[in-house]
Amino acid sequence: MKKQKTDYFKAVILAGGNGERFWPLSTPERPKQFLRVFGGESLIRQSVNRLAGLVRNEDVFVVTSRALVAATRRELPEIPESNIIGEPMRRDTGAAVALGVGVAGEGIVGFFPSDQMVADPTGFRHAVATAAAIAARQPKIVTIGIKPTFPATGFGYIDPATKRFVEKPGEREAKAYLKAGYLWNAGMFIASADTFRTAFEQYAPALMPLIERPSANLAKVYEGLPKISFDFAVMEKSKEVDVVPGDFGWDDVGSFTAFDRYFPHDSRRNVREGPCTVVDSEDNICVARSARISLLGVKNLVVITTPDSVLVADKSKISEMKKLFK
Amino acid sequence: MKKQKTDYFKAVILAGGNGERFWPLSTPERPKQFLRVFGGESLIRQSVNRLAGLVRNEDVFVVTSRALVAATRRELPEIPESNIIGEPMRRDTGAAVALGVGVAGEGIVGFFPSDQMVADPTGFRHAVATAAAIAARQPKIVTIGIKPTFPATGFGYIDPATKRFVEKPGEREAKAYLKAGYLWNAGMFIASADTFRTAFEQYAPALMPLIERPSANLAKVYEGLPKISFDFAVMEKSKEVDVVPGDFGWDDVGSFTAFDRYFPHDSRRNVREGPCTVVDSEDNICVARSARISLLGVKNLVVITTPDSVLVADKSKISEMKKLFK
Repeated sequence: MKKQKTDYFKAVILAGGNGERFWPLSTPERPKQFLRVFGGESLIRQSVNRLAGLVRNEDVFVVTSRALVAATRRELPEIPESNIIGEPMRRDTGAAVALGVGVAGEGIVGFFPSDQMVADPTGFRHAVATAAAIAARQPKIVTIGIKPTFPATGFGYIDPATKRFVEKPGEREAKAYLKAGYLWNAGMFIASADTFRTAFEQYAPALMPLIERPSANLAKVYEGLPKISFDFAVMEKSKEVDVVPGDFGWDDVGSFTAFDRYFPHDSRRNVREGPCTVVDSEDNICVARSARISLLGVKNLVVITTPDSVLVADKSKISEMKKLFK
Repeated sequence: MKKQKTDYFKAVILAGGNGERFWPLSTPERPKQFLRVFGGESLIRQSVNRLAGLVRNEDVFVVTSRALVAATRRELPEIPESNIIGEPMRRDTGAAVALGVGVAGEGIVGFFPSDQMVADPTGFRHAVATAAAIAARQPKIVTIGIKPTFPATGFGYIDPATKRFVEKPGEREAKAYLKAGYLWNAGMFIASADTFRTAFEQYAPALMPLIERPSANLAKVYEGLPKISFDFAVMEKSKEVDVVPGDFGWDDVGSFTAFDRYFPHDSRRNVREGPCTVVDSEDNICVARSARISLLGVKNLVVITTPDSVLVADKSKISEMKKLFK
């Protein structure tokens, strides 16, 4: 076993989104991490920026899909081109994390989603640095646990007392988790490369080829890999887990309803982006990227237009966007 | 007083629509009467066609707005160009009927809206011929009264017993009218030119210049005219009125909800025209004329796209379309 080098910190940005949840503003060719609607810069740009000071450019890696490598390199010109790796096909976050461990090679490695918002980057860096320090001292995978603001069913949870990871709950469970003080699993994991390696060896040996030979013919390797999330493959099984609580205005920007949090509202709680005429309507999100949108007498809708597509969805059904692509 | 010539029948098509009720499919430049969505031919084309056999081409007149004269001539090439008259500004149907009487000059003259549907044209012609025969024998304005199918608040009514014309009612009144056997005033009026002239002289003398000098400088004349409907100016006041009941599948195609009557539905009662993806949605009218529309979890909406505009309206509010243009 190689001696752990813990004197520097590496970051792997996971950018495997497929553009469905913000369709039609985002598309498979331009998924959520490239969206510029939140804060002016793309979400992936913000994800890299908020690591400033914690990690050197040559120690930032991005795991994305092959089709997005060129766009990602354009978006992040300061990152060495060879650090931006394209997966030949989607095999969920299990494979993406394993590949990230493989390309990072050694040191303390942090995994970060490419499509989240953080209101307080200093608080974020403090939490990450704390997690990295723990990971440098102990053979544990440290996650940042976010204090929940509502009983979300779209995230996994962590019990900070037992360090137990649990999958996305149903609504009743989610409420119980909130009461019990569970934290959200925000998909951020920090450990030494060796600790990740040991965990994969023990819990997901099928993914080891990605760690051992990350520059092999990936197309051939990926074909045989299971589709499995890193949470399910490793975190829910491992006992060597720790949690650093984080309270830095985290937001996963999970769907169009995030517009309600980031855009100003009119007097009837409508969000308007672009040319929107709104009459006798309330609580709508109206984003006009081509033709003018006119709303008349409607409530709780998400209406998005691009030159190619018009989406009209009830806010309460927006989490079921995938159904449109079947 | 000139001797009445009753040996031939003339028709004046009133085509003054402003394109609001079917916006954005219709526009001020392409109002409802040019819509081809119902039955393949434009509504004005259908309005002329269904008079076939009752009236010669040279006895068909159209009163429209100046901006629409050229488009109307293109749409109705068999009608003499000089029979298609443009009003310099909108002064409601009072002025349009007066101008029509002026240009028709003599004979029995029938006024017909340009934007209605008739399922049974033979039944329509029979009712019109009956009305024309009455108008040839008696100095009366004869209207076609349509048997109501629901307590509409968008039409005036006629009491066939008393021949009394009443304005568009409220909901409670409308129900009472239905019980009392009242008929819908469908905006069709048949009388000799002399009878119309006499009625205008008596009830709306301000409009007489249009009858007496229909080829004068209309721009100047119109400026001073009152905005008043023919119903209000004449029909609600005149005692010389008769009614021929009509039951020929009449439909005023008054708003997008007419699509529910003329288009096929899917199993969840959605009407789809053009590329529409519909998921977990019911009772919607979806008309895609440019970008694909995707509906997710919505009900009772009218969603229309054109290259310039997207309309998203609740069906129950569709009668308030005018509010969008304020």
